[in-house]
Amino acid sequence: MTSRARLLAVARGDEEPDLVVAGARVFCAFTREWLAGDVAVADGRIAGVGRYEGGERIDAGGRFLVPGLIDAHVHLESSKLLPAEFARVVVARGTTAVVCDPHEIANVLGVRGALWLLEASEGLALRVYAMAPSCVPASALESSRGALGPREMAEILRHERAIGVAEVMDFPSVIAGDAEVLAKVALHPHVDGHAPGVSGSALDAYAAAGIRSDHESTSWEEALEKRRRGLWVLLREASNARNLSAQLELVRRHGPEYCAFCTDDREPDMLVREGHIDGMCRQAVAEGIAPEDALVLATLHPARCHGLAELGAIAPGFHADMALLDDLEGFRAAVVIAGGRVAARDGRALPYDAPPVPGWVRDSVNAAPLASDAFDLGPASATADGATIGPDAAERDAGRVRVIEIVPGQLITRAAQEPPAVRDGRVVADPDRDLAKLAVIERHHATGRVGVGLVRGFGLRAGAFASTVAHDAHNIVVAGVDDASMTACVRRLIELGGGIAVADAGAVRGELALPVAGLLSEQPAEAVVERLDELVALLREQGVRIDAPFMTLSFLALSVIPDLKLTDRGLVDVAGARVVPLVV
Amino acid sequence: MTSRARLLAVARGDEEPDLVVAGARVFCAFTREWLAGDVAVADGRIAGVGRYEGGERIDAGGRFLVPGLIDAHVHLESSKLLPAEFARVVVARGTTAVVCDPHEIANVLGVRGALWLLEASEGLALRVYAMAPSCVPASALESSRGALGPREMAEILRHERAIGVAEVMDFPSVIAGDAEVLAKVALHPHVDGHAPGVSGSALDAYAAAGIRSDHESTSWEEALEKRRRGLWVLLREASNARNLSAQLELVRRHGPEYCAFCTDDREPDMLVREGHIDGMCRQAVAEGIAPEDALVLATLHPARCHGLAELGAIAPGFHADMALLDDLEGFRAAVVIAGGRVAARDGRALPYDAPPVPGWVRDSVNAAPLASDAFDLGPASATADGATIGPDAAERDAGRVRVIEIVPGQLITRAAQEPPAVRDGRVVADPDRDLAKLAVIERHHATGRVGVGLVRGFGLRAGAFASTVAHDAHNIVVAGVDDASMTACVRRLIELGGGIAVADAGAVRGELALPVAGLLSEQPAEAVVERLDELVALLREQGVRIDAPFMTLSFLALSVIPDLKLTDRGLVDVAGARVVPLVV
Repeated sequence: MTSRARLLAVARGDEEPDLVVAGARVFCAFTREWLAGDVAVADGRIAGVGRYEGGERIDAGGRFLVPGLIDAHVHLESSKLLPAEFARVVVARGTTAVVCDPHEIANVLGVRGALWLLEASEGLALRVYAMAPSCVPASALESSRGALGPREMAEILRHERAIGVAEVMDFPSVIAGDAEVLAKVALHPHVDGHAPGVSGSALDAYAAAGIRSDHESTSWEEALEKRRRGLWVLLREASNARNLSAQLELVRRHGPEYCAFCTDDREPDMLVREGHIDGMCRQAVAEGIAPEDALVLATLHPARCHGLAELGAIAPGFHADMALLDDLEGFRAAVVIAGGRVAARDGRALPYDAPPVPGWVRDSVNAAPLASDAFDLGPASATADGATIGPDAAERDAGRVRVIEIVPGQLITRAAQEPPAVRDGRVVADPDRDLAKLAVIERHHATGRVGVGLVRGFGLRAGAFASTVAHDAHNIVVAGVDDASMTACVRRLIELGGGIAVADAGAVRGELALPVAGLLSEQPAEAVVERLDELVALLREQGVRIDAPFMTLSFLALSVIPDLKLTDRGLVDVAGARVVPLVV
Repeated sequence: MTSRARLLAVARGDEEPDLVVAGARVFCAFTREWLAGDVAVADGRIAGVGRYEGGERIDAGGRFLVPGLIDAHVHLESSKLLPAEFARVVVARGTTAVVCDPHEIANVLGVRGALWLLEASEGLALRVYAMAPSCVPASALESSRGALGPREMAEILRHERAIGVAEVMDFPSVIAGDAEVLAKVALHPHVDGHAPGVSGSALDAYAAAGIRSDHESTSWEEALEKRRRGLWVLLREASNARNLSAQLELVRRHGPEYCAFCTDDREPDMLVREGHIDGMCRQAVAEGIAPEDALVLATLHPARCHGLAELGAIAPGFHADMALLDDLEGFRAAVVIAGGRVAARDGRALPYDAPPVPGWVRDSVNAAPLASDAFDLGPASATADGATIGPDAAERDAGRVRVIEIVPGQLITRAAQEPPAVRDGRVVADPDRDLAKLAVIERHHATGRVGVGLVRGFGLRAGAFASTVAHDAHNIVVAGVDDASMTACVRRLIELGGGIAVADAGAVRGELALPVAGLLSEQPAEAVVERLDELVALLREQGVRIDAPFMTLSFLALSVIPDLKLTDRGLVDVAGARVVPLVV
């Protein structure tokens, strides 16, 4: 008997199921009701909701059985965990499928890297689908190891778990009708978008290109504009892009249709402490959304958004991915079933065997030795007074410099202009005004290219911190108020083959190795979180006050999120899609 | 500039649109709102909703602009019109796309017939998508020209407008897990269903096979059971299956999600007098459904059900198929735009050139000459009194015969049992008890096979009427109370090469030729309706009282709708999937 024929026989009651979840309140995603009945599973699929004899039985005792949660858009690499370890963390919290965009690793290791990530997620309790990265590099203004063109994307699209074209971040080129980017959009009928702050006729043009989702809205009004144009609104709550709360009004006013949850980028500490999609359900319900609406945002809607026709519901023939919840406030998963098998109990996933990481994935940092003046910001202006420091001197000659201003909890930055601090005629950091130096060092081809600028918002008063996680090209990004500490951090990361480091007074105080592509640890999540906590504590001692400082740092290098960013090529005016000088 | 690049330029405001609908209230199917703005069209697609300069302008004057209406499931052939003529009728009423199952013509002419129907709908203002017929013949108990197996279905699925597997009507085989029918289901991920009255664990098995829609519910409770299992509920209002009203409670209680409108089978008179999907909107709103809910049932939902990602909404990049409505009660389309061009105004579609019909499509009736005893119902029982007529005689020997009992306005019939009327020892018709003879004559291979039985519910008091439209195998079906009139009808239909005829006293009184596959006329809709009206008037003179008598007659031969039907092979007990004798 084929697997399908056996499933039908179980549905009819002619054969025993493999597994029965008995006595649950069963969530029906198609009507947002709770149904009474036992759920039977055979060969990894749901046979039906009814009464069944035989099979392994799980007594639900009136608890809430819901479809496995789905993340509609995530960069797995932001977890800093290997795929199997990421799966262990999120499956324990009820997530059974994610749609990932492997563009972090593709920036570092090309097509081969993206395909390795899919290979490394083979056979997990978590279903990992991928979209083919469309913007590697994110723009011409940053330097990845190599570019992914339509040919390379097509190679990824041949994978059985590749389901479309990943977020088309180069929205200015899309809107302008650039032939090269439209060729990438045309590779597949299913295309994710990325259009932060884009509205009106520009948004019309972006949508008219055939792009059908967006996860970058920071207000419900922005999200509504996108939904009206037929874009799926992926409500995001990332470590440093906490956009859920501001968008829930869209669900209150217009219902949950054409909306779904996504996490985009979560640090491992956020995953461990706030959870994953379960955390978004908790937050939404705490903010007044009906649990049934939160649940469709977390299950059926992400599946429909991505055309995953057999996921997201407890219905006959669907994949048997389910979570048994204690209640509809905490959304704690007492039992998680993935592909018809118990994958987690009481918040703990079953052990797994992670496949070994091949050497070429590990050996990714290829940076030139750091020049002694690598972090020199140059002269304040042609007429600057070489002997003074501070705003008074700068104001006298009316020079101003561009400053990247961090917006706490957001990926966007503001482009500020300030009188520069000047020492010996050169622009320098000024901790008293929260002005730190920022540098991005090319690390794929040892070009020695370094971009430098100023950033405000970390609160850094001493030393420096650096990371080889630096969206999206993942060069080395470093922020600091003294050049010696910046240099120490960067040199250590090159030695480690990738990671995160904190230094003061020219010496490294703490580090986290990320040897896999310079992005991922091979340690368990808890160990990574502990180490990151220590590093954050060191940064607190050095004055840093904001949340998720490493993720914030890493996104300062992303040239496609407004307003002002820094890459190895210099300061990037995102709206203008050009490099601008430090001095105005 | 490519067409897509020009569309984007129009969206940005850099190029003039082809067409602008100015000053409408624009329906947003994603939020069920009405938006203010002008709608711009370029190269057949929507550029956006905003303000635009140039292009042809249609002043909407505050009227309601909605996406073109979509029929989620229709057998075009039931209109008895050529595709271009069907399109003319429905486009004038706001319909711009249909998903058809060409199984009528496939029963008569095989794969070649189905592909001809697609060819004949090329280039129309109406987008005609097709599902590959899965049940030709509908069951082994009726005789089409030939069977369509997976190989023939795959041939149809290669057509660019073929989008899935058509309604899998042989639900008993699906539920039983029959390998052959499961092989057909597995041909494509998108599969329509047909499960009249199927519920509980049988419905679980049907859904578990991977089938994802149904249009056969006759109550909202039945529809709810299907929706809970993830089947799209296609709310049907056909000529003789008026199921909309009974299902609207599902929309009232659970919202319009996972529901869509369909017409399935409409006689041309219904199309001309009650309209098409516009008529379903009218009815739904008259019965208290919000116009915005009715509109998503008529536009975006059928598109989503069928994965037609660029249809069903007025949004950038979507096909520019739209209807400008005077109001939200009458749903009259003042202007219809299809593919960015005006296709109808004031209820009149623009003229079209229908391609000529090839000879082989026309020459389809191949029946053996009718034997003189073709309509003999046989002896009432072994002990019947050969000299008497009427129930008294039959009751005396306790014999009973099976009678197909028509349920007005429904496709289902009831299986009644009655004492037979007997003359000369043979069972005969008995107009006083509304018992007419029914016969189905094989007409594809001249086998001479004739199935006979009794039917109640027409009210026929004299003569006979017949049709080569006889679902789904489209043999010749005839009902009558005298054998000479039945013979006259059938002989005339064979002469005509297909059609409908009414006879009395052994002579044909009226006829409608349906030379195209024995299913379609080549006349305009109005002429066909006029002729059908005349034929119905003749039937009224002969006692017939029910609505849509010809369509009712034609469905008495369909072996997959309960309870009792008649094919060329005999009386069919549908639930038992077997032929049963007339005498119990």
